[in-house]
Amino acid sequence: MQYDILDQITSPDDVKKLSADQCRQLCAQLRAFLVDSVSKTGGHLASNLGAVELSVAIHRVFDTAVDRLVFDVGHQCYVHKALTGRAALFSTLRTFGGLSGFPKPYESIHDAFIAGHASNSVSVALGMARARTLKKENYQVLAVIGDGALTGGLAYEGLNNAGASGEPLIIILNDNGMSIGRNVGGVASHLSHIRIRPGYYRFKKNYHRVMRHFPGVYDHIHHLKTNLKKAIWPCSFFEDMGFQYLGPVDGHDLDQLCHVLSWARELHAPVVVHVNTVKGKGYSFAEENPDKFHGISAFDPQTGLTLRGGGESFSSVCGKTLSDLAGHDPRICTITAAMESGTGLDSFAQAHPERFFDVGIAEGHAVAMAAGMAAQGMIPVFAVYSSFLQRGFDMLIHDVALMQLHVVFAVDRAGLVGEDGETHHGVFDVGYLSLVPGMKIYCPASFAEMRSMMEHAALEEAGPVAVRYPRGGEGAYKGLSRGLSACLRPGKDFTLVAYGTMLNEALAAAELLEGKGISAEIIKLNAIAPLDCGAVASSCGKTGRLLVLEDCMEDGCVGEKLAAALAEQGLSLRSLILKNLGRTFTNQGSVPLLRKSRGLDAESVAAAVEEAMKHGKETA
Amino acid sequence: MQYDILDQITSPDDVKKLSADQCRQLCAQLRAFLVDSVSKTGGHLASNLGAVELSVAIHRVFDTAVDRLVFDVGHQCYVHKALTGRAALFSTLRTFGGLSGFPKPYESIHDAFIAGHASNSVSVALGMARARTLKKENYQVLAVIGDGALTGGLAYEGLNNAGASGEPLIIILNDNGMSIGRNVGGVASHLSHIRIRPGYYRFKKNYHRVMRHFPGVYDHIHHLKTNLKKAIWPCSFFEDMGFQYLGPVDGHDLDQLCHVLSWARELHAPVVVHVNTVKGKGYSFAEENPDKFHGISAFDPQTGLTLRGGGESFSSVCGKTLSDLAGHDPRICTITAAMESGTGLDSFAQAHPERFFDVGIAEGHAVAMAAGMAAQGMIPVFAVYSSFLQRGFDMLIHDVALMQLHVVFAVDRAGLVGEDGETHHGVFDVGYLSLVPGMKIYCPASFAEMRSMMEHAALEEAGPVAVRYPRGGEGAYKGLSRGLSACLRPGKDFTLVAYGTMLNEALAAAELLEGKGISAEIIKLNAIAPLDCGAVASSCGKTGRLLVLEDCMEDGCVGEKLAAALAEQGLSLRSLILKNLGRTFTNQGSVPLLRKSRGLDAESVAAAVEEAMKHGKETA
Repeated sequence: MQYDILDQITSPDDVKKLSADQCRQLCAQLRAFLVDSVSKTGGHLASNLGAVELSVAIHRVFDTAVDRLVFDVGHQCYVHKALTGRAALFSTLRTFGGLSGFPKPYESIHDAFIAGHASNSVSVALGMARARTLKKENYQVLAVIGDGALTGGLAYEGLNNAGASGEPLIIILNDNGMSIGRNVGGVASHLSHIRIRPGYYRFKKNYHRVMRHFPGVYDHIHHLKTNLKKAIWPCSFFEDMGFQYLGPVDGHDLDQLCHVLSWARELHAPVVVHVNTVKGKGYSFAEENPDKFHGISAFDPQTGLTLRGGGESFSSVCGKTLSDLAGHDPRICTITAAMESGTGLDSFAQAHPERFFDVGIAEGHAVAMAAGMAAQGMIPVFAVYSSFLQRGFDMLIHDVALMQLHVVFAVDRAGLVGEDGETHHGVFDVGYLSLVPGMKIYCPASFAEMRSMMEHAALEEAGPVAVRYPRGGEGAYKGLSRGLSACLRPGKDFTLVAYGTMLNEALAAAELLEGKGISAEIIKLNAIAPLDCGAVASSCGKTGRLLVLEDCMEDGCVGEKLAAALAEQGLSLRSLILKNLGRTFTNQGSVPLLRKSRGLDAESVAAAVEEAMKHGKETA
Repeated sequence: MQYDILDQITSPDDVKKLSADQCRQLCAQLRAFLVDSVSKTGGHLASNLGAVELSVAIHRVFDTAVDRLVFDVGHQCYVHKALTGRAALFSTLRTFGGLSGFPKPYESIHDAFIAGHASNSVSVALGMARARTLKKENYQVLAVIGDGALTGGLAYEGLNNAGASGEPLIIILNDNGMSIGRNVGGVASHLSHIRIRPGYYRFKKNYHRVMRHFPGVYDHIHHLKTNLKKAIWPCSFFEDMGFQYLGPVDGHDLDQLCHVLSWARELHAPVVVHVNTVKGKGYSFAEENPDKFHGISAFDPQTGLTLRGGGESFSSVCGKTLSDLAGHDPRICTITAAMESGTGLDSFAQAHPERFFDVGIAEGHAVAMAAGMAAQGMIPVFAVYSSFLQRGFDMLIHDVALMQLHVVFAVDRAGLVGEDGETHHGVFDVGYLSLVPGMKIYCPASFAEMRSMMEHAALEEAGPVAVRYPRGGEGAYKGLSRGLSACLRPGKDFTLVAYGTMLNEALAAAELLEGKGISAEIIKLNAIAPLDCGAVASSCGKTGRLLVLEDCMEDGCVGEKLAAALAEQGLSLRSLILKNLGRTFTNQGSVPLLRKSRGLDAESVAAAVEEAMKHGKETA
């Protein structure tokens, strides 16, 4: 009987048929289901617990098979997935081939758009609303955006354009007052000011109810009302932008939510519905510690304790290293875009709070602000996930590289990240960072190298420098290599080039090949910009064969650059193999599984080399 | 006597010594100087005419050798340059080796930071202010940002963070109510609402003057005042974000400007000074037609008529083609980020106003909105300058490519653009567009190809497609080539690969080489993604030698990709020459001069081939 109501829900139509009392039971069952399910698989919990009533209300009022519901970031989509026929798939959540933790149109007609990066939902929804109107079609477009994503400039660009457009669309601001980390910025404090004045919603609701019977009067006194309202209630950021503003409403009061959403649907205008929710709602451990339960690995639902210990990671080593360096050099400061804990900067923030800056989900601003700091003599380090730094691409070139300012980029989650899937893999940075003039790119393969390279990048380099490193911990290789490159294993038949923790696959492949009588030479690149082409050329001059192993996209990869450099030098190869992710996206799954599926594991590397050697003998 | 006051100004110290009357004369002389100078060299005029008094006021109140003045976009810096010892250089404006049209720290200590792209100034200024405070130094930091740049999300990210920071810094909003094109969005209309209520500034000024004598009373009634003010005057976007707001002030009243800037300096807080200016002020032709005089080529100051006719350009051909296509297909719509005229979309906007969307300076939003439109069945075409699309890099991958949506990118100003210099050259898109999974990239070399490829991209392709083309018109080549590539000239000694209008240099080089007895085969790439490696391999199989000519950065260039593909196929070259822009920025100057200076003109190409042939004979 635990999930008797939830088990009956095969589509959102079933949600619409429930009585008010059944709905309350459904919400309770959804919470139990979320805790039970995520405690086994890991995933995003706190934000989904906060969005239970909101998700149910949306499916009571709208038809997401036709209406378009665009999630921002998207990790708050679990309830939506459970209500749209995917509850049974939650045991496969975030696994290879299983249910995605983010909206995916290929999973369901109810997922209108992908999500993963923040702040795009208003823009996407506006595009959909404009298409709907131009095609004279008749459906609603909704965006659900958290207060955290509202710190992103893209959300502002979308709001600014949508508010002025007059296009009917509904922006649901899911405001839990904190988002992923603490919320930051002037708008956040403005929102918190609104939060404490819920009387505004009640006033508007009653006013609207009375006035709808007197449309002429309504129009006539609209102007007066607007000015009067501003005298009594804080003026609204959203109304200034051209939106009708409804709220704030209690995000855990299903009746109120259904009422305000129905009202928003009838306005036929750009509307913001401001919903106050509690992150982690209904599960005490998550309410008390929403950051920990934002994204969490498997845990004991009775105690809230995670089953696997955290352990050291490249992120934590980075944070500690920076904190140590800052203890000796007052110029060092760090910047995060709402990822203090994820990037391991929490230790730095505790030790040097005056030199730690969380700018909100605003990567472009973080890069440009760092440039301003560097121009005036500080050494800013921006710690950021590889896939999110894509937002700062132009600023890397324009604000940092043009003046060759000494800004350090701690590029976390470089390479395949695993369970978060295609939106989160850091597989583009090799290409886009190497496009930035003067950018040096270091690639530690061990914690020892992480420490050494970060210190070198911060204190001994000039101009823009990146240190890129993967999610999680180090592998078998725990060495400390210095210089631009190093030969880690001499060989005569084939040159294997790798960098970062992909080195471990190359080393393992060399072992496998030795068993087959093939002698592989391993060149480890400590930096991929500048590239030590000389070392690779010298090895290839001996072996005549080259394989470059990388977990990044093919275009702009190191293999292409090495191939060009060798050919320009007049060195021709008997065999060239580029092992990388080609030109397609990589789905979710554990990193070992993904490497295997894309042919980047030791076995696949060894097999490719063996094949090339055979082929070489045949044609020789 | 025309410039008797201006001629005395050798540094901003001289500005501070002038009497009020001399200042008025200086402003008049600066206007005459700007019109005279820009009429000869071309450049940005209207925005500089609007910023005369503001620039003089800044130099009366601040010391830009120590205080840091950050311009946004930067084309409004001419008066600042003239007052900081560079008036005599204006005859070299925007020429090779001459005075830049944008702030450049290498020119003067008074230029605190580079500029060129929009909306970064608040972020940079905040970084500088934070560095100043952390280093316990004592100087002011100012940003000058136009209302147009305020539509960019980066400005919002900066304002949001700066307002909450409490860092003393001064944001001067130079509000001419239109910026480059018509201003767009909710915030713009909010600003225009403030503009018509200048009484607010007078109220605050008098209130402040009285209250400064009663500091206790001032603090006590601050809260009351804030609420009272909102009852009487429109609430302020900036105050909601945490700024002290001063304005609006008349941007052509020097006394009022000096007063409000002095006041802002004393507040030691984040301050927005809202200045209303008239674009083109004081030169009737520019006041009447500020768009035309935004960026203009040489003109007759007496008549305001430009000396060179506009003529057809890739941009105008693109706009007309899209307008024609839209006439036959109701799904086609176009998007610009505040560049209606620059991208040639004015014809489209006139013919199909309901399907034309100017979203403001908001490239990221434009890309994501286009994705939403495409998801719902429209065919959106985003026409955008190559260097500005860098702002939408993440959205290309995340919002367009993940779902392989059919969005068309008309990538204007691809390659070297000439006089606008390093911030405006479109030399990164070959690298960053080819990183986008599934992105097809067409490169017309003639107007005929522009029409044909745009039609193909819009109507016959699926998924993301880019058509990239240069600033200006076509060259000698006026053909219409179809397919992914074409051999335009058979040869036996050397394969020359080129695309876009760089083809003209390759063809001319082949002519020169023929005179030297060297037979060059020309492979023209019509698309650079997908790459027709087979055609290049087949030619190289014959010649054994390859030169790839491109006006883009080396990293991620087509030459690297071809080198890798040939080597993977086992084809080894006797000679490989990659002719591109390497890894450094390219300064301003005419495109022919720049090509020559970077070794990309026909003569340099021919010389490189000749050298390689000689070398080949020696070593053969």
